[in-house]
Amino acid sequence: MSHNTFGNLLKFTTWGESHGEAIGCVVDGFPANIKIDVKYIQKKLDLRKPGQSKFTTQRNEDDKIKILSGVFEGKSTGSPISFIIYNTDQKSKDYSDIKNKFRPGHADYTYWSKYKNYDYRGGGRSSARETAMRVAAGAISEILIQNSKYKKIKIESAVIQIGSEKIDGSMWDSKIINKNPFFSPDKKMIPIWEKLILDHRKKGSSLGAIIEVRVSNMPVNIGEPIYQKLDSELSKAIMSINAVKGIEFGAGFNIVEQDGLTSSDKMEIKKNKINFLTNNSGGILGGISSGQDIVFRYVVKPTSSVLAKKETISKNKKNTTISTKGRHDPCVGIRAVPVGIAMTAFVLADFIMIDNSKKIN
Amino acid sequence: MSHNTFGNLLKFTTWGESHGEAIGCVVDGFPANIKIDVKYIQKKLDLRKPGQSKFTTQRNEDDKIKILSGVFEGKSTGSPISFIIYNTDQKSKDYSDIKNKFRPGHADYTYWSKYKNYDYRGGGRSSARETAMRVAAGAISEILIQNSKYKKIKIESAVIQIGSEKIDGSMWDSKIINKNPFFSPDKKMIPIWEKLILDHRKKGSSLGAIIEVRVSNMPVNIGEPIYQKLDSELSKAIMSINAVKGIEFGAGFNIVEQDGLTSSDKMEIKKNKINFLTNNSGGILGGISSGQDIVFRYVVKPTSSVLAKKETISKNKKNTTISTKGRHDPCVGIRAVPVGIAMTAFVLADFIMIDNSKKIN
Amino acid sequence: MSHNTFGNLLKFTTWGESHGEAIGCVVDGFPANIKIDVKYIQKKLDLRKPGQSKFTTQRNEDDKIKILSGVFEGKSTGSPISFIIYNTDQKSKDYSDIKNKFRPGHADYTYWSKYKNYDYRGGGRSSARETAMRVAAGAISEILIQNSKYKKIKIESAVIQIGSEKIDGSMWDSKIINKNPFFSPDKKMIPIWEKLILDHRKKGSSLGAIIEVRVSNMPVNIGEPIYQKLDSELSKAIMSINAVKGIEFGAGFNIVEQDGLTSSDKMEIKKNKINFLTNNSGGILGGISSGQDIVFRYVVKPTSSVLAKKETISKNKKNTTISTKGRHDPCVGIRAVPVGIAMTAFVLADFIMIDNSKKIN
Amino acid sequence: MSHNTFGNLLKFTTWGESHGEAIGCVVDGFPANIKIDVKYIQKKLDLRKPGQSKFTTQRNEDDKIKILSGVFEGKSTGSPISFIIYNTDQKSKDYSDIKNKFRPGHADYTYWSKYKNYDYRGGGRSSARETAMRVAAGAISEILIQNSKYKKIKIESAVIQIGSEKIDGSMWDSKIINKNPFFSPDKKMIPIWEKLILDHRKKGSSLGAIIEVRVSNMPVNIGEPIYQKLDSELSKAIMSINAVKGIEFGAGFNIVEQDGLTSSDKMEIKKNKINFLTNNSGGILGGISSGQDIVFRYVVKPTSSVLAKKETISKNKKNTTISTKGRHDPCVGIRAVPVGIAMTAFVLADFIMIDNSKKIN
Repeated sequence: MSHNTFGNLLKFTTWGESHGEAIGCVVDGFPANIKIDVKYIQKKLDLRKPGQSKFTTQRNEDDKIKILSGVFEGKSTGSPISFIIYNTDQKSKDYSDIKNKFRPGHADYTYWSKYKNYDYRGGGRSSARETAMRVAAGAISEILIQNSKYKKIKIESAVIQIGSEKIDGSMWDSKIINKNPFFSPDKKMIPIWEKLILDHRKKGSSLGAIIEVRVSNMPVNIGEPIYQKLDSELSKAIMSINAVKGIEFGAGFNIVEQDGLTSSDKMEIKKNKINFLTNNSGGILGGISSGQDIVFRYVVKPTSSVLAKKETISKNKKNTTISTKGRHDPCVGIRAVPVGIAMTAFVLADFIMIDNSKKIN
Repeated sequence: MSHNTFGNLLKFTTWGESHGEAIGCVVDGFPANIKIDVKYIQKKLDLRKPGQSKFTTQRNEDDKIKILSGVFEGKSTGSPISFIIYNTDQKSKDYSDIKNKFRPGHADYTYWSKYKNYDYRGGGRSSARETAMRVAAGAISEILIQNSKYKKIKIESAVIQIGSEKIDGSMWDSKIINKNPFFSPDKKMIPIWEKLILDHRKKGSSLGAIIEVRVSNMPVNIGEPIYQKLDSELSKAIMSINAVKGIEFGAGFNIVEQDGLTSSDKMEIKKNKINFLTNNSGGILGGISSGQDIVFRYVVKPTSSVLAKKETISKNKKNTTISTKGRHDPCVGIRAVPVGIAMTAFVLADFIMIDNSKKIN
Repeated sequence: MSHNTFGNLLKFTTWGESHGEAIGCVVDGFPANIKIDVKYIQKKLDLRKPGQSKFTTQRNEDDKIKILSGVFEGKSTGSPISFIIYNTDQKSKDYSDIKNKFRPGHADYTYWSKYKNYDYRGGGRSSARETAMRVAAGAISEILIQNSKYKKIKIESAVIQIGSEKIDGSMWDSKIINKNPFFSPDKKMIPIWEKLILDHRKKGSSLGAIIEVRVSNMPVNIGEPIYQKLDSELSKAIMSINAVKGIEFGAGFNIVEQDGLTSSDKMEIKKNKINFLTNNSGGILGGISSGQDIVFRYVVKPTSSVLAKKETISKNKKNTTISTKGRHDPCVGIRAVPVGIAMTAFVLADFIMIDNSKKIN
Repeated sequence: MSHNTFGNLLKFTTWGESHGEAIGCVVDGFPANIKIDVKYIQKKLDLRKPGQSKFTTQRNEDDKIKILSGVFEGKSTGSPISFIIYNTDQKSKDYSDIKNKFRPGHADYTYWSKYKNYDYRGGGRSSARETAMRVAAGAISEILIQNSKYKKIKIESAVIQIGSEKIDGSMWDSKIINKNPFFSPDKKMIPIWEKLILDHRKKGSSLGAIIEVRVSNMPVNIGEPIYQKLDSELSKAIMSINAVKGIEFGAGFNIVEQDGLTSSDKMEIKKNKINFLTNNSGGILGGISSGQDIVFRYVVKPTSSVLAKKETISKNKKNTTISTKGRHDPCVGIRAVPVGIAMTAFVLADFIMIDNSKKIN
């Protein structure tokens, strides 16, 4: 029962609306005496920050994170860590239209129906702005992992498809991912996606994306049965990100085209080590990490806010149209990449602590 | 923190191993004074029961469910409802081989690595036998829904693809789904799937499946933000089912091929009622039901246990092969259908109670 | 949100009614590969068992515990451990009167009001019979502690007052506690309490008791701030036992008579070890164990079911009287002793796992 | 698993250290569309505020509360409500001594032992300053109750004993409680306690207190069995308040002196209404409210920080002495009164929502 809290042993609770005074996050259960580098957290936030390139929203938020508690003399104290970001560029006037109309594809209608009193300014709580705080929680989870016995775990993520344009499946150049505005792991997609996005922006339209996450140097044993499987928790985590419509692990939906002879990952001893011949499972067996890379993909729908007019209805039940003039991402999937990494890091850090708790002597 | 418990206000905890004396489930939080029809629950279990047709495992379990507590004079008392099924047809000898070898695609390796002491008989706790208890919990959740103000909610599910053979997307004949051994909603697939499965069984192989769930007569307002979204919880629930590798809502992964002009479901007033022109969202906006049908699909990998030999390793780290002679489902996805319905019913019942709790006067 | 579940990392869920077919308990989160001695658990249950002496109820339950899952080849598997006890001596006829009348001091009225459908046979779920399962969960928690790095922890409990008759505060003879029918730590109280109880039974009356729990060889560091303090969780645990009306730690309510100069436990270094000069705190500072003995006391009210007539009302709102002819404990506090130990053991085992989870490298 | 979170359906999470930049609290699960009067919350905080009279600490905190999220146009939105209070009068220099020594009776030793990195300034997280945020959470819970169907519930609390000086048990003058610096319900104790406290302050000492809470106009049905009893949750809540060493309900520990004939509260029909002849149970039967007044008492130990010297040890394990020169409450129990009310209000509001959730149609 925790609408705005995620996690088990490690927990984070986010609060704040898109156009309120501030947004924040409280991380509870974080072990004591770990060095907390605020610059590292800020760097992660900067990857998600709006206004970074012409391919993301021009909303201009500083997103300067501040720690209000739980860190003393540079180290965690074991007490709750409270993060805050003050909102600086709300421009509420951009959003006046949505006070009376429901934006298709947004949570306007359901929030209004459920809560009656709804902060319509920029989506209020349902805005993707909330994900900034996930990135902070994820960054501190990465710090936890780096200070654990599993410090070698490496989480990478990249956009692998925008619209109908996919990368070549074998291309995954880790070095370039964070150095292009699309988090592309495949150099040759950069100009293609650039043109595609600019074309759609011109039309007042937007694009969807598919994102892949790869976790390497995974230990075996992370995850718990039966209702707390690693893939089950990762799915919950990723599906909670705004605009995500699906998730798949390893061979994913395509596994339906394989048969039982090839679909299970065969095992062998190779140079005295356990080796899997394929990774259709995405690195998880029975909900527990097998030591292979964790691999999963998720799809982010095209940004719902577009310049072009859409049919919708008003709160007083009249047919009307709406076009969103605000500064929006032409492909919101791009900025989901650091959020997906954050949620993954958080889930792993939490599970490391859970697995640890069983080693009672 | 609940490895073997699922739910929030309504909770169920399952226990028991595939080849132990019994399996069971405790449902807590169930409202009092609701008529409990054990026959209804048994009927649901019979849909999942092994040995129903030549297209499922020939393991012959009665799966006779018994209620040990929480029901008095035919009605729920508000106390925990304890279900038990005694295992009758364990045939432990079939499984002696897996004592020493890891079956590819199964949880044998990860459980052995994590727990050291592992009940290898038929997969122990990681066996799909556990899902019988999910069906019981789901059936009683359906009873809850039928006694709530949302009694009209209807949950249907069908297999829509086996191997590469898909139904025609527009075919969904509710009347035939439970009357054919494949839970097919499309009559013309029955002979095609029959031949496909028998061919694979002959080869000692197996097949995957894609399953669709449709919930109609949904009220608006079911689901909670931000980390307890309806789609997020359903994903957690469905991904926890054995062998599921992916889930998608509404337009799912294909939404990446749409643009922002068409992908958001436009709204209109039609005959004085709110109407959506499409259902790309799968009936959920911002994690809350919109009143449209909930629509999602999940993929079940081919049964990992096959008759044909597969490369694997032994517990003492030698290369070897394994072929599973036990009685297995040639397409385990078929028997997942009632389990997916059960998890869906449970999630909805839980959310109905959560939504209800806010109406404080 | 867990009405019938207790615990955090380690959890147990109880089910079953006093006069149903069986009662049971599912323990989840128990670490794998720990030797489980069912005889040890049975021995603990026998201490609570009815019919042990003329000073407890003559209801004659075997209380034979059976493990249905989670233990394989004598060791825990990491899967949920399911305990069951079949009820054998229900004698439902003894209870026919309470179908229509509310027994003063019992939960009859509140359960009937809250649930409408109430299993009135012997109190149904609200019966102290439920505590048998707490003892099982506690016994397995003791096994966990004995297998942890804190294996030296020793939990003792004794009755220190029945009616107005208290032990001499300095008397605590561990060796005799389990060897007299009153769990008295003070030999000279045995004949006094014997006479007192028999006198009250003769009058058709009953007596209350105060029970003390002492945990020695405690490590420092057990417990978590702020809302999960060791004393806070122990209070929740103990107050959930039927008929308990209060709990106090260390100097308890009497600390109000001390002043700030004496009430805080002073510290010194003695033989190179940290030593406290007094133990007014009961071994807990800021919710965390200090390494001193944990000491607390709780009060159990006189058995509400007495032979003598009491004024009450019927379900159809008429004034009437009731006398309970069933076989009841003349001092139910006596049989609470093993239950209090069990809850204490469970809380400690859970906290050991929580503390452990933070040691991430 | 929530060290810094309290509650089930309604939850609050506190953060912040005594001498950090700010303290705060996030309330989650609060129903939407309820009018939030910040002045009401501030008024409650002012009752707990330091520096109110010469009988409390002279630390001079404004304790000005600010709401950062979850309230829009004066009403709750259903989103998390984030409270913040900036610390203004930290005077860190007062506390330099405790950097190297453990203050007896404080959490210094256990926090230092458990966390290694401990914010020693004024007790950091373990300081009673944290309770300001409980008062905010409690005030908003009172607003919830006032907007529920149980709006008549009234929570009162008073100090009934300081040192050895108790009120006359029958004196409870609601009108004066908040109008004297001791929260005394008995006028004649005011000069007695005044002298007592000033005497102890002069000696550099401090005093303990016993506090009573009375909840009137209680409906029946609030609370849940078996491990979520109303008295069990209230005990957890109250025992989590700094310096509380015990709690008792109704007749409390004294019930041990009664017998089974008198101790159970008899029932009668009086003027067509259900009436209890006594209230030994404190208004709770089987963990569920009976409709009688909820009555409980708790004891707060004497303030541990005193001016007089106490034996203690230093972090480098040397014997030494400490005297706390900071500005401390001579009787910290006084300022616990609004905190106890707050925790009670929160527990009740949470349970009202839980009970509500079961009414599914």
